[in-house]
Amino acid sequence: MEYKISDKFVNMKPSAIREIFKSLGKPGCISFAAGNPSPESFPVEEIRKITSRILSEEPITALQYGVTEGYPKLRELVSARLKRVYGIGSDDDETIIVSGGQQGIELTCKVMCNEGDVVISENPSFIGALNAFRSLGAKLVGVPLGDDGMDIAALEKALAENPNAKIIYTIPSFQNPAGITSTLENRKAVYALASKYDVVIIEDNPYGDLRFSGEDVPTYKSFDTEGRVVYCGSFSKILSAGIRIGTLTANKALVSKIVVAKQVEDVHTNMFFQMVCAKYMSEYDLEEHIAKIRKLYSHKAGLMISALEKFMPSDVKFTRPDGGIFLWCSLPEGYDLGEFIKRCSEKNVFVVPGTAFLPDESETTRSFRLNYSMPSDEEITRGIKLLADVVAEMR
Amino acid sequence: MEYKISDKFVNMKPSAIREIFKSLGKPGCISFAAGNPSPESFPVEEIRKITSRILSEEPITALQYGVTEGYPKLRELVSARLKRVYGIGSDDDETIIVSGGQQGIELTCKVMCNEGDVVISENPSFIGALNAFRSLGAKLVGVPLGDDGMDIAALEKALAENPNAKIIYTIPSFQNPAGITSTLENRKAVYALASKYDVVIIEDNPYGDLRFSGEDVPTYKSFDTEGRVVYCGSFSKILSAGIRIGTLTANKALVSKIVVAKQVEDVHTNMFFQMVCAKYMSEYDLEEHIAKIRKLYSHKAGLMISALEKFMPSDVKFTRPDGGIFLWCSLPEGYDLGEFIKRCSEKNVFVVPGTAFLPDESETTRSFRLNYSMPSDEEITRGIKLLADVVAEMR
Repeated sequence: MEYKISDKFVNMKPSAIREIFKSLGKPGCISFAAGNPSPESFPVEEIRKITSRILSEEPITALQYGVTEGYPKLRELVSARLKRVYGIGSDDDETIIVSGGQQGIELTCKVMCNEGDVVISENPSFIGALNAFRSLGAKLVGVPLGDDGMDIAALEKALAENPNAKIIYTIPSFQNPAGITSTLENRKAVYALASKYDVVIIEDNPYGDLRFSGEDVPTYKSFDTEGRVVYCGSFSKILSAGIRIGTLTANKALVSKIVVAKQVEDVHTNMFFQMVCAKYMSEYDLEEHIAKIRKLYSHKAGLMISALEKFMPSDVKFTRPDGGIFLWCSLPEGYDLGEFIKRCSEKNVFVVPGTAFLPDESETTRSFRLNYSMPSDEEITRGIKLLADVVAEMR
Repeated sequence: MEYKISDKFVNMKPSAIREIFKSLGKPGCISFAAGNPSPESFPVEEIRKITSRILSEEPITALQYGVTEGYPKLRELVSARLKRVYGIGSDDDETIIVSGGQQGIELTCKVMCNEGDVVISENPSFIGALNAFRSLGAKLVGVPLGDDGMDIAALEKALAENPNAKIIYTIPSFQNPAGITSTLENRKAVYALASKYDVVIIEDNPYGDLRFSGEDVPTYKSFDTEGRVVYCGSFSKILSAGIRIGTLTANKALVSKIVVAKQVEDVHTNMFFQMVCAKYMSEYDLEEHIAKIRKLYSHKAGLMISALEKFMPSDVKFTRPDGGIFLWCSLPEGYDLGEFIKRCSEKNVFVVPGTAFLPDESETTRSFRLNYSMPSDEEITRGIKLLADVVAEMR
């Protein structure tokens, strides 16, 4: 039969990154394309001990249906940690467990946006979130991302021109893909505009724990006095990505709707690994574990920046992240990004073209994203050298 | 702030069942309200061995991001089993892993229905599916469910009257909530109408493996020559419900869209437990395990039917399921279902009012759903006696 696909999905494409992901794994290939945490960041031994104990002591709780909001003990532990580490959470807020940060973002848009409503995002931004908004029929409006955060004048213009804007979506710390951390001043200005135009802010903070230089900047949620911020957290970059455990913190009234939306998507998140996360948090030192990951990524980011400085000509620009797992690299004027990507892949080096991250798919860019958490030290140095060779060939 | 909730969610309520679920667990309470498998159906010891081996041998695969379609080995094993046990799967079909059968149902509707499009379901039907369709802005049209399956004349009328019908949603075996299995003749007639009116059939078969009496009836998917059937399977009732692993089998063209929709919801399903399911299927005898569950439920269903026959007056009607975990009980004319439910809960016995399962929420019913997989033998007999006491009190 001929399928009649819904208007929202008829033109939806899979994430360019997840498609690249499939073609990786060839011998000798160097991938800077992933968004994966380093396998060294998974506390395998501790997880082994915990899973064994769960199956001895509480197998039925772990294997039976649970409540949609999540495993109560994990919700408590996450709330307490968010309060302690980030100053997040008022009496009117509630934290629930979701199936990865991705689900928290998608659910929030789902309960807030009618078809045609506008979501404003940084430009560039995380493709998974952009595709989620698209899949719900939301219209995307991008606001240029500068070194300090979103361009405030452009944001105000976008809000003024789009009275049906419902959400500002931001990754304020170690942004994906740009590696930029917005300043407190910038965040305050964004919040003031959200308040003025009465829109919700989705604060997506999967990398927030991974700062390896500079000073912490307060989260939006920590100074949110109006219940305007939906805070999305994740265990993907600090414990395991494959277990799909994320968190969402927002005002109770909004959370109650998000819970209904989650219920019809997957009933609840994998109970067993909610319990693993809870036991890890209560029996091991998560902060110490995170400190190790920070050290690892500090080293890898440093290596990549050194290699870029050493091998790339000075007209190739790149960001210098203070944390997270990405940096953003821009080719000089006159370069063709598609040709560059093609030549890189011929040399078995993979990067993600910046076009994947544009809210407006008709725009172009000469930028691409580099990941340093997955490749080995040797691959980082050799891979950047190969990228520089391609730049030189194309000059 | 005042939240502007989307039109689709502003009136959405949480599942009545999952809300009842929260109030259970009081000491002395007897619950016939759950949809949970018996804890005895979880192969805890085998899962313990498998998890330990995964963490020794392949921890990184289990804890790292995976592909949206699911763990390849599990997809192969599930496809092979569906072929072997149910004759399901042509060369044009593909099986993917989803986060519970619930997600497969929701995703299929999402990629097919525009707002206002019609989904036809059995009346009564599974509340989780009905709420998923509602959450996507689909309009529900219920078709009465008789002892043989959907009323064919009513189905044709519904299709003829709703040219924007996109989907027929059916649970053909051991239906939730009614416990009814539709006959092959009925299924063929439903398929012929789906073909005539060019709509897709979602065949939701989470209980299909749990037949304990009578003869197997071929699945819709097994005689689907047109790629018209989306088959939703689940590990919830045969291995574990809390791990949220389901399967979806459909024509490749449709699956490619469903994969995009899944990607923006949760990227992929918990990798670790996809591997657990795969190892269980390849290293243990799943069919033998299922045979044990069937025996258990045969016993429990028999007990419940005996108790109903013994204690209930003859004008209280109930279905006699050949499998699954539910039966459907109807009060005589003149009884008020709300009052009945209230009096039952005062006696600490919980059932789900049939109103929860009506596609048209403005309708009423005197029926309620009884689950026999969760309560103990003693609870089944004592609980049914208490329900009969309430019936007598209200006469």
